[in-house]
Amino acid sequence: MSWDKKFSTDAGAIKASEIRELLKILSDPSILSFAGGIPDPAYFPMAQVKDIISGLESRPDLNRQAMQYSLSEGYEPLRTWVSETSSTAEISLGIDNILITNGAQQSLTLLAAALIDVDSPIAVADPTYLGALQVFGTRRPRFVSIETDADGLRMESLEDAFKKGVKLLYTIPDFQNPGGMTIPEERRQRIVELAHRYDVVILEDTAYRALYYDRPPPPSLLEIEGRTLGTAQWHTKGLVIQLGTVSKTLMPALRVGWTIAPQALLDKLVLLKQANDLHTSTFNQIIAHELATGILTDHTIKLREIYRKRRDAMTTALRQHLPNSSRFSAPQGGMFVWLTLPAGMDARNLLKSALNEEKIAFVPGAAFYANGGGENTLRLSFSTCSPETIDEGMKRLSALIAREYLAMISSQ
Amino acid sequence: MSWDKKFSTDAGAIKASEIRELLKILSDPSILSFAGGIPDPAYFPMAQVKDIISGLESRPDLNRQAMQYSLSEGYEPLRTWVSETSSTAEISLGIDNILITNGAQQSLTLLAAALIDVDSPIAVADPTYLGALQVFGTRRPRFVSIETDADGLRMESLEDAFKKGVKLLYTIPDFQNPGGMTIPEERRQRIVELAHRYDVVILEDTAYRALYYDRPPPPSLLEIEGRTLGTAQWHTKGLVIQLGTVSKTLMPALRVGWTIAPQALLDKLVLLKQANDLHTSTFNQIIAHELATGILTDHTIKLREIYRKRRDAMTTALRQHLPNSSRFSAPQGGMFVWLTLPAGMDARNLLKSALNEEKIAFVPGAAFYANGGGENTLRLSFSTCSPETIDEGMKRLSALIAREYLAMISSQ
Repeated sequence: MSWDKKFSTDAGAIKASEIRELLKILSDPSILSFAGGIPDPAYFPMAQVKDIISGLESRPDLNRQAMQYSLSEGYEPLRTWVSETSSTAEISLGIDNILITNGAQQSLTLLAAALIDVDSPIAVADPTYLGALQVFGTRRPRFVSIETDADGLRMESLEDAFKKGVKLLYTIPDFQNPGGMTIPEERRQRIVELAHRYDVVILEDTAYRALYYDRPPPPSLLEIEGRTLGTAQWHTKGLVIQLGTVSKTLMPALRVGWTIAPQALLDKLVLLKQANDLHTSTFNQIIAHELATGILTDHTIKLREIYRKRRDAMTTALRQHLPNSSRFSAPQGGMFVWLTLPAGMDARNLLKSALNEEKIAFVPGAAFYANGGGENTLRLSFSTCSPETIDEGMKRLSALIAREYLAMISSQ
Repeated sequence: MSWDKKFSTDAGAIKASEIRELLKILSDPSILSFAGGIPDPAYFPMAQVKDIISGLESRPDLNRQAMQYSLSEGYEPLRTWVSETSSTAEISLGIDNILITNGAQQSLTLLAAALIDVDSPIAVADPTYLGALQVFGTRRPRFVSIETDADGLRMESLEDAFKKGVKLLYTIPDFQNPGGMTIPEERRQRIVELAHRYDVVILEDTAYRALYYDRPPPPSLLEIEGRTLGTAQWHTKGLVIQLGTVSKTLMPALRVGWTIAPQALLDKLVLLKQANDLHTSTFNQIIAHELATGILTDHTIKLREIYRKRRDAMTTALRQHLPNSSRFSAPQGGMFVWLTLPAGMDARNLLKSALNEEKIAFVPGAAFYANGGGENTLRLSFSTCSPETIDEGMKRLSALIAREYLAMISSQ
């Protein structure tokens, strides 16, 4: 009997991802990993989680609610917190604009189900977040790749795609995963303007927005749309849907994220959420809410200090050691440095040598391209290693790149 | 701007459910609710949860792992526990047969994505679990209703559907939601036999299996298939996929359930799980694992005692008070009594009077029918009320049914 013959057409189209296989390698402690886009668990506020759970005992109503079935929309105090912290002078959000999901990944799942049909043309940056390509891929859309430069999405490429009928754009404007780029304010204004001219829905993923190391990022696309439309108009005409999460600032395995959307869309997402898994764990939502209203601001300031030093260590080491034939991005926030090898080199082959000869891991860039390309690129994460380890790792990786490059040009 | 025009065809087909609207009513504490299929929160083992979390402190490796990104398959010790407790003399399961999901609801989501195409004919009992109809509905299949009697699925109706090309059967063999029926062993053998004759995949939902009040239920479909095929054959030819959960025996908002499947299917489900939300909260999986290997057996014995008394209170009160023109099921386990009103009465209208005149809630049965029907049926849950409240509620509900029935026949 073959299961292959029983799979749905959608499921048949799904392939295993490289990041997934890589995460398996990472359990080998002898490997210096610059692969995972994951926060450093040394800074998870576990003591506060314990206090929150102890505190539940003196609040019997909340204690019982914590583990019972609950509304699909999410835990009301958490939705209130999201709506209040995301409201601006120009957009007043209510809890009916907020749906709590199992991390921003599930927000993408529900938005994809709500908005993408088979063969729907949807626009994504080249490169972009692999998890978004995977979840969109389960809907079998037509991916339209948008070119990027050091400032993120290129406007000519974007307008061209919009003109040709793209229905939806997925973008990470701040410290992008994987490229590290931040879109400047003028481009953001232009994106919102083009979305309204061509009637394109924008999914704005803000996963890394709070992790800035030089200065806060420009206003979000949602804020810019609010400025343009005003609050009443946003609720009826808004096209920017914002995705948020506590996975990068607090803890990924809380699995708590959210979607901010006009209510007409949110109501549909709630039905999809209910069908998908009824609701996100109330227990986890209570913990996320207590942490968000308690320590989050101070905790994020601390994380910025820690990750800034690691970002600096990585860019300093690469500036010093990387051969001139390669180049890299110096991100203003987030977790990622993007490295471009000389044309003709393949990051997949480099990974094999890196693992075998140097016990170093990273993610080859090609996986982040919806329609192929990027074979000579790779993603380096600086979030989980000490500055010393980063310095050592970049030295060894740079030397390996130099050796491999020399071998390549000598054999030509 | 209209979002309706932007929705995918799948999303456009989704409607709000009655149970969802009902759950909103249930927050009014003055209502006697026999509506929700939910466990009694008074018996949630919250003290043990607190101890587990305190205990994490002395296990720093586990403490860090609890909140970090993790493998999509789930937490290995929990998968091991599921595989060991679900293995039988005839089927030896390994962890590669187990995927942890956000409750059995998400298992249904992933199985639906893996196995159902638009217009795929799939078989469900009349009546069946509403949440299954909702999640299957997002794939726009063709529902084939299977008739039931006091012993669950009727075999002629089932074979007829299988002959006509049904690809998949969803069934809850033990103490069914909503009908309370348990399928006897001979029928179970026949179901497995027919599945293999006609090559139909069976999704066996065991949500209520541990909650028996008279005697343990017959062997599961998975056990029976194991007996028939033997373990080696099951791994390559097994058609029974089993869904489990701790939602009814421990706590729903842990959101921890699982799928048991041959590896070729499970590998595909893991990819779908990864795309959907990366993984289920490791923190919650650790709690579920500690509770499952610690208190679960004793806790379930206690729950059986409590729910048995409530089941008895409900069936005794209905036997005493329900007018002869109506009838009800006396379930051997689970949470539900199924009530059939006289032909011509509509349980939706009855609910309105029950809420207004008696402050009593239940779920009208029509929602549980995939292709219409069941207007004169309703579901009563006995899981959250004391025997005294149940007695009082059934008295008032019976009197109301008598009044409404009298009014109906007088006006004819």
